[in-house]
Amino acid sequence: MPVSLPPLKPPRRLLFGPGPTMVEPRVYSAMSTPIVGHLDAYFFQVVEDIRNLLKSVFGTANDFSMAISGTGSAGMETAVANFAEPGAKFAVFANGYFCDRISEMGRRYGAQVVRFEKAWGEWFADEEAAEFVRREKPQLVAFVQAETSTGVFQPGKAIAQAAHEVGALVIADTVTSLGAMPVQVDQTGIDIAYSCTQKGLSCPPGLAPMTLSPLALERLRARSGAPRTWYLDLKLLDEYYDGAHRYHHTAPISSFYALREALLAIAEEGVENRWARHYRAHTAFVAGMEALGLAMHVAEGHRIWNLNTPRVPDGIDDLKVRKRLLAEYDMEVLGGFGPLAGKVFRVGIMGPLATEENVLALLDAFEACLRAEGFQPKGSGRAAAEAVYAAAG
Amino acid sequence: MPVSLPPLKPPRRLLFGPGPTMVEPRVYSAMSTPIVGHLDAYFFQVVEDIRNLLKSVFGTANDFSMAISGTGSAGMETAVANFAEPGAKFAVFANGYFCDRISEMGRRYGAQVVRFEKAWGEWFADEEAAEFVRREKPQLVAFVQAETSTGVFQPGKAIAQAAHEVGALVIADTVTSLGAMPVQVDQTGIDIAYSCTQKGLSCPPGLAPMTLSPLALERLRARSGAPRTWYLDLKLLDEYYDGAHRYHHTAPISSFYALREALLAIAEEGVENRWARHYRAHTAFVAGMEALGLAMHVAEGHRIWNLNTPRVPDGIDDLKVRKRLLAEYDMEVLGGFGPLAGKVFRVGIMGPLATEENVLALLDAFEACLRAEGFQPKGSGRAAAEAVYAAAG
Repeated sequence: MPVSLPPLKPPRRLLFGPGPTMVEPRVYSAMSTPIVGHLDAYFFQVVEDIRNLLKSVFGTANDFSMAISGTGSAGMETAVANFAEPGAKFAVFANGYFCDRISEMGRRYGAQVVRFEKAWGEWFADEEAAEFVRREKPQLVAFVQAETSTGVFQPGKAIAQAAHEVGALVIADTVTSLGAMPVQVDQTGIDIAYSCTQKGLSCPPGLAPMTLSPLALERLRARSGAPRTWYLDLKLLDEYYDGAHRYHHTAPISSFYALREALLAIAEEGVENRWARHYRAHTAFVAGMEALGLAMHVAEGHRIWNLNTPRVPDGIDDLKVRKRLLAEYDMEVLGGFGPLAGKVFRVGIMGPLATEENVLALLDAFEACLRAEGFQPKGSGRAAAEAVYAAAG
Repeated sequence: MPVSLPPLKPPRRLLFGPGPTMVEPRVYSAMSTPIVGHLDAYFFQVVEDIRNLLKSVFGTANDFSMAISGTGSAGMETAVANFAEPGAKFAVFANGYFCDRISEMGRRYGAQVVRFEKAWGEWFADEEAAEFVRREKPQLVAFVQAETSTGVFQPGKAIAQAAHEVGALVIADTVTSLGAMPVQVDQTGIDIAYSCTQKGLSCPPGLAPMTLSPLALERLRARSGAPRTWYLDLKLLDEYYDGAHRYHHTAPISSFYALREALLAIAEEGVENRWARHYRAHTAFVAGMEALGLAMHVAEGHRIWNLNTPRVPDGIDDLKVRKRLLAEYDMEVLGGFGPLAGKVFRVGIMGPLATEENVLALLDAFEACLRAEGFQPKGSGRAAAEAVYAAAG
């Protein structure tokens, strides 16, 4: 029986969610370039290019900078599986969904997880963070630099300093920050950072960029026994991507082409310019939301630049607003979940969308949809955002 | 410091290795179609299309047919991690590299691995296979249907029958067979099959198609405790792809688009027609190799159709022949490894390359490169292959 299906024809979306986000045409074009083999010298050149380009977005001199063949969640599992040895004490800073997921993975791999818990939307002050680490004396510490479920940015320097005092390694989840705001792996003192491709890097999902400090690499090499996971075993991956190029798995060549192109586009723009562009879009959007009369869930100075969490106004059904945005404007915005379900919107403004034109279009659409659901704006979101751009020059 | 790199420009290759293999332009085009979000209704429609299309290539009525967000090796780890429970007896039919990898994963996940070992290039006869399973009485059995390291095809029916007699589940590695030759999951009695996208499906690497029998699904649901892996936890993946669409990870949308298109192309050709096309290419290539005077490593009737392992003639350096094929004809052919290093070529003839024109071009190039390295052909490879195609009509 011959099978017949309509041709692939996805609806056109403006992806203003937490990710995946918009991808530049040049990245799609690279991704559809005919592949070479997974042991071809050309492929390993692409791996080297990615290594060098990743250093600049991660803010590191780490030679061990590579992409894991899975999505950001695979990056998280790689970090936990390789460094949370069975029985080890693993301290997790827990103020959102992704911290919970790290904790769950830590338990599955047999670590003894201890948590410093805060409400979703709060952050950890330097003193209390350091105090927790000094008291617990763990072998491994994890924090989420950009918590996608809440919109909180957590500077990790105090955490890392305290961790190193007690001899612990530091894992940072940089899934949402990488490429859109400064991650600063070396300056912060992060030993293991992982990320994804579909947020700040403006690439389709499929790979998890990762970097290891020399100290993390030393611990990895000294590890007694292999980790449970074979697919995400960093020692085996290192032997494949570096040195002898010993066959491990068949790397997703097309995704590597796409990542190289996305990183090259960032390098051409200049990583600092890109961060500044995201910061402007963020401050303009926040000004617009506040002018409309929406409050931000996260206090100023603790917000992720490329993932905004305005609170849903009283009496408004966020799902209805989001459905309207999608149906009438092709704009995808996500809602909160867990304790923030119905309480916040999650609005990603990244990559090609982080421009004045797109921020204004989003604010206009947001205002119209909120009005249609019965909300009375306090003032003009557009005017407030335009003022931010005008002031920035 | 602005970074400057040459534009992506991979060399053009004719991929006659074991995989990745050639990809149709329509698949590249689908892969570079602008993405939607990972929770978009359109994405879940693509997931449903893939589910239905996979049933036909797997030869199954299993509703649980999906793609894992990693390469074929991630598919293998998903099978082992979810079904080889700690302490369980896990019987592995071991006659090549991929059986060794399954064994290694089984040990890492805490199973008690017992092996029936054979030399690389041999297969298991029905009687001895069944006898091994009946004697060991394992909870789980694994065999590699198409062993890419050797070229052996292992019919699994006797293994599956014996396994079910003793109450064991059956894992089959169909990484190289899927899409190029009949896998026949239901007829064979396979409970858990996994594969990859970059071989018989003519897609870039990046996903691992997988299917579970109702019995496997029942055992999965009855499993006490979660598997170590979170990223490859089938219960969580099922909740994401089916029913409630509960967020798990951000699926690599572009790879799903590509897989849907590749499977649709197969459905349009007709899966039996495609198998027949691969079988013809295989028999023509083998006739050609034997006419030239090369012996096949695997006995007739036990060979994979889309991955041929002619023996390297005495006195010939296979690496030199392969380097010449690549440099002079842009043709990638791989060598043997492990006990077969230097002893066989591994020649994949799949997808767009499985045509008379391409088989003849490969034979001509092979003959020229063998001659250049000092080998004297016995007869004409081209004539022998043409005769096969002529006889097939």
